[in-house]
Amino acid sequence: MADRVSVIALGGLGEIVPGTDLPALIADSLATMAEVLPLQDDDVIVVTQKVVSKSEGAIVDLTDVRPRPEAAEFARRYGRDARQIEVVLREAVRIVRMANGVLITETPHGFICANGGVDASNVGPASGSIVTLLPRDPDASATAIRAAVRDRLGRDVPVIVSDSFGRPWRLGIVDVAIGVSGLLPLDDLRGTLDADGREMRSTVRAVADEIASAAELALGKTTGRPVALVRGAEFTRGEARIRDALMPPDMDLFR
Amino acid sequence: MADRVSVIALGGLGEIVPGTDLPALIADSLATMAEVLPLQDDDVIVVTQKVVSKSEGAIVDLTDVRPRPEAAEFARRYGRDARQIEVVLREAVRIVRMANGVLITETPHGFICANGGVDASNVGPASGSIVTLLPRDPDASATAIRAAVRDRLGRDVPVIVSDSFGRPWRLGIVDVAIGVSGLLPLDDLRGTLDADGREMRSTVRAVADEIASAAELALGKTTGRPVALVRGAEFTRGEARIRDALMPPDMDLFR
Repeated sequence: MADRVSVIALGGLGEIVPGTDLPALIADSLATMAEVLPLQDDDVIVVTQKVVSKSEGAIVDLTDVRPRPEAAEFARRYGRDARQIEVVLREAVRIVRMANGVLITETPHGFICANGGVDASNVGPASGSIVTLLPRDPDASATAIRAAVRDRLGRDVPVIVSDSFGRPWRLGIVDVAIGVSGLLPLDDLRGTLDADGREMRSTVRAVADEIASAAELALGKTTGRPVALVRGAEFTRGEARIRDALMPPDMDLFR
Repeated sequence: MADRVSVIALGGLGEIVPGTDLPALIADSLATMAEVLPLQDDDVIVVTQKVVSKSEGAIVDLTDVRPRPEAAEFARRYGRDARQIEVVLREAVRIVRMANGVLITETPHGFICANGGVDASNVGPASGSIVTLLPRDPDASATAIRAAVRDRLGRDVPVIVSDSFGRPWRLGIVDVAIGVSGLLPLDDLRGTLDADGREMRSTVRAVADEIASAAELALGKTTGRPVALVRGAEFTRGEARIRDALMPPDMDLFR
């Protein structure tokens, strides 16, 4: 059990555009700092969604988007951008809630989140009409970064792609994992004993989400630093998909 | 902006029982380690709910509890402890969902969570029938700890009381803040500029929740260490209540 966890923000990667080899950039950045900060067995790399989406070209220029009447009406009523609403609806497999100016959808990945993860902030200078979508396959994005780091540095470091999500009953956003590679997003302690020898029946730690939140504390929202190393957290290595950490529809009490 | 955040688990505090002066114990523990680890201006103390509840006597012996028929029927159907269900219902101001073996209630504090925060794990040896309730006023609990540390060490360190919550659409639990003192639970960046000079309209960081989650990475679930120091996170000092960070009913789309 770790008694100390460190979150280290990596330096900026420079401008990321569609086609940027983000895995190589991250591997380079880690190689540069390897002398002062060599990778360890208990490291996890956290990369924020925005740079992943941009490098993969998961962006839409709103200039080309024609909103459907439903999007135009919702945007007019709540002072939002109808073209962005249209993009959210196009990306959605299901509308969960569309009320009070809030649009919550289910994405093809199974995520339920505000605006389907479509985001206009931090997209780049002189890009007033560009929004990012979620990466098509964030687990694959994480796996590509993990492979580049392994090839370059000879270490198999788990990778989390993170994004900011709201929560139904709490204000504000927290970063959670939207893609994983090399670690299990859930640390299942059911059946293990607590400090008093009592069985902990119901504890499944969402450790990838907690690592993503910890990374956000060092990366923040207003800087150009999209990658953090989280060192010393207790997690379990393994191959998994982030979908394994999402509530199955038959257990969802809030559809 | 922090480029490094550290989470340091404090040593165990020993057995906590009703009447234990937890604020004094925590101040003592910090004083003992002050020579090797002096407190800093960017420190936050995170204390897990269980020890706060136990020290405050927020516990119930299930032996004395007679379940109402509704609790007995739900428990029978889903293989749960009818007395614990009864305690949850007594503590609740509203039942949010009661289905599939899951009982989600709103507590008097305004929290919406599984089993109303009533918890049987990690309560102590030879206490098979004891459950903890949430502290009556977790902000006050945090304030008492903050005052004891200030009196003992001459430093005003913000305090978070944390607990593990599930989330509607994701499996597993993450630690969030259920009480705060000395820091704002929400870091409101709306109106500030992002790295590209674009206004970040919608970003309110739930920084107290992220600090609570980061602390959990060092404290874990199976050890007897209930206190962590989170150092270097970006937060805003101020007086607030955790209720300020809860979704107001008129904005709640998932009642």
